[in-house]
Amino acid sequence: MAQRGESGTGGRRVDLHDLDRSFAEILVSERHPSAAVLPSKDEVGAFVDEVLALFFPQGANDVGATAEELSARLELLRADLSRSLCKVAPREACEDLAGRFAELLPDIYSLLRDDAVSIVAGDPAAESLEEVIAAYPGFVAIVVHRLAHGLHGLSVPILPRLLAEVAHARTGIDIHPGAKVGRSFCIDHGTGVVIGETAIIGDGVKIYQGVTLGALSVAKSAAGKKRHPTIEDRVVIYANATVLGGDTTVGHDSVVGGNVWLTTSVPANSYVYNTSQVRVRSVSDTLAPLDFSI
Amino acid sequence: MAQRGESGTGGRRVDLHDLDRSFAEILVSERHPSAAVLPSKDEVGAFVDEVLALFFPQGANDVGATAEELSARLELLRADLSRSLCKVAPREACEDLAGRFAELLPDIYSLLRDDAVSIVAGDPAAESLEEVIAAYPGFVAIVVHRLAHGLHGLSVPILPRLLAEVAHARTGIDIHPGAKVGRSFCIDHGTGVVIGETAIIGDGVKIYQGVTLGALSVAKSAAGKKRHPTIEDRVVIYANATVLGGDTTVGHDSVVGGNVWLTTSVPANSYVYNTSQVRVRSVSDTLAPLDFSI
Amino acid sequence: MAQRGESGTGGRRVDLHDLDRSFAEILVSERHPSAAVLPSKDEVGAFVDEVLALFFPQGANDVGATAEELSARLELLRADLSRSLCKVAPREACEDLAGRFAELLPDIYSLLRDDAVSIVAGDPAAESLEEVIAAYPGFVAIVVHRLAHGLHGLSVPILPRLLAEVAHARTGIDIHPGAKVGRSFCIDHGTGVVIGETAIIGDGVKIYQGVTLGALSVAKSAAGKKRHPTIEDRVVIYANATVLGGDTTVGHDSVVGGNVWLTTSVPANSYVYNTSQVRVRSVSDTLAPLDFSI
Repeated sequence: MAQRGESGTGGRRVDLHDLDRSFAEILVSERHPSAAVLPSKDEVGAFVDEVLALFFPQGANDVGATAEELSARLELLRADLSRSLCKVAPREACEDLAGRFAELLPDIYSLLRDDAVSIVAGDPAAESLEEVIAAYPGFVAIVVHRLAHGLHGLSVPILPRLLAEVAHARTGIDIHPGAKVGRSFCIDHGTGVVIGETAIIGDGVKIYQGVTLGALSVAKSAAGKKRHPTIEDRVVIYANATVLGGDTTVGHDSVVGGNVWLTTSVPANSYVYNTSQVRVRSVSDTLAPLDFSI
Repeated sequence: MAQRGESGTGGRRVDLHDLDRSFAEILVSERHPSAAVLPSKDEVGAFVDEVLALFFPQGANDVGATAEELSARLELLRADLSRSLCKVAPREACEDLAGRFAELLPDIYSLLRDDAVSIVAGDPAAESLEEVIAAYPGFVAIVVHRLAHGLHGLSVPILPRLLAEVAHARTGIDIHPGAKVGRSFCIDHGTGVVIGETAIIGDGVKIYQGVTLGALSVAKSAAGKKRHPTIEDRVVIYANATVLGGDTTVGHDSVVGGNVWLTTSVPANSYVYNTSQVRVRSVSDTLAPLDFSI
Repeated sequence: MAQRGESGTGGRRVDLHDLDRSFAEILVSERHPSAAVLPSKDEVGAFVDEVLALFFPQGANDVGATAEELSARLELLRADLSRSLCKVAPREACEDLAGRFAELLPDIYSLLRDDAVSIVAGDPAAESLEEVIAAYPGFVAIVVHRLAHGLHGLSVPILPRLLAEVAHARTGIDIHPGAKVGRSFCIDHGTGVVIGETAIIGDGVKIYQGVTLGALSVAKSAAGKKRHPTIEDRVVIYANATVLGGDTTVGHDSVVGGNVWLTTSVPANSYVYNTSQVRVRSVSDTLAPLDFSI
């Protein structure tokens, strides 16, 4: 990256105008006016916020709403979704897709009620359903995932991923819309969680911050294959554990310890933990100045 | 999730109206008009921003403010807090609570000045106090934690957790308002840090990204007990280490290495590290195609 | 933190006014009207957004822009940058610095096109360039890093760090502006990634969430020295691996496994993995109730 620091200010000003112009021409040449104009982050975020407000009201106006008002808001929500869908799907399909998504909403709502109840039941620091809804990023991530997964099931392109990234940006939790997640799912703290496209998660599963359910092989040719693990019912996976591979199944009622690196299946009722032990050394035992790198 | 893809568009439009209406009735039936209307994320975020602007001004208007102006802004801040408190505490208590919180502010400010100074002193990449205040998410997390912990000490419900989540969303650092944190605390980088409700942290402690100070047992019955570790003065804990358990104490002046999983106490002046060594294998040594999962 | 809970409401109200006033005087005494007024987060974030919109348009207005319009926007961008630079650099230098930064933009744009193409080529879940640009936080982090690194190379103080923190807050990826990053760099998922000031990264490198390229010694006296590792061409580093030290080099075409803690150099074509194996224990094998802490 060579820099022309020599030119005088007068000459430079003209230079820069030319520079802007020639760079602008490069930028224009790379633009594809026919390319799909995707829904913006703000548009997708507003959709998430409206679903959250409809499903789990926290504000005074929301709590006191009548069925007529909510029905009208659901209709508006569908119209908004239809407009977003028209940016990623054929124009003749988007209204129909929005309608089919609306049909999924009562089931999604029911799943989300269960998720919230199970978080309150499982966390000694959780005091109420209101607190979970207002203050648990893991719950926001699940709300968005169930919406994104619904759209993914209707084969909607890109929009499900945009939804997932709204959740990722807000919570640090990255769940691919394709992941299948059972009832009463709980993510605690959650920052750094990654759940891959073909992961399958049973009922009553709980995972902590930094857990990855990922792929062993990430060759482009693996697209479409099951690359991510299966986690059976009531498994708990502690912080920063990494479970990888499409053939890897963690059997039901198992516990996976923190910082574990697991790439093979384990049967039901397993405890999985590292053989690595920590060692403790006193400063007085050491001759040379020590660093944590020892 | 069955989908009715068969119905024609005309019939569908009526269907959807009925669907909206019946789902709206479910939503209304789940609403509790008497439930507490919690302070919104925006409201709590604005409170944090105003404290940051008062304590550590970066803008021209802020820097030039007089004592009269700042005094008036402190009074407004207290009124805002009082309004938020009325949403989570009895109406007759909220003004008094806001006043008692205001009494804590000078001490909190003094602690935060020390935190900022210790970050500059300890980080070779930090060039000035201004840089730390403007660009260190670990500092924002400490500011919010000391505010939230003050409210937690006054037994204010939920609002401290909402404050903590503002910091979590902005920084990826999740500190429960109950955690007791000593002077000159430093979190570097910070994404993925989790510090539990009953953790106790001494003076001059430094922790890095991905560190968890968590609980061993997360049974709901453990609520109220000390479930999280004690970290004594001048301990350093490196990236992605996990320290767990209410009886676990890391003695003063100890160093905990990165990626360590520690569930027992260690004495003062300890170095704690994994016995696990990495192994290196050359591609030419392998017969079969290798993956990172080996 | 003693609390005066005894005083009556009437007396308290006066107290609080005095309290505000005396605390305001402390705050004023700590302010330095001559201190630099740094660019705000909003200002720096808007700069990032405008570069993103210019380089990788997603909205209808952007896609259809002419070279004249883009040239005018580049000129405005430079004027905005110049204003921000005047807050951190001498007034007589800021216009010149903005011009020298503008000269770097075509090269930065070319690097970023390569980055986006390599992400599509390497990720089985990526379906198009548009999806990468719209929905990959790792790509946003690289965009911002290449901008920040350009300013860092011009010895601009603080502003590069403010840019890096915009990316960190949005993506959970923390790259110091000083880090040297080669062509076709890919960060997947990315939450928790930390790349230090003196790291050197070759071409075609791919890293996953939670990877740290950090320092072994973090003494303040180490400022200015190479403290962070060198990663040669085509290295892949999996989730939550930690690579530390200024003398540590990972040779080209190597693979570093997840959760590895690496503090020494490895030659080209190495596979690096933990010797630690996971152990699996069945519930029926245990006499006492087990926890994951075993």
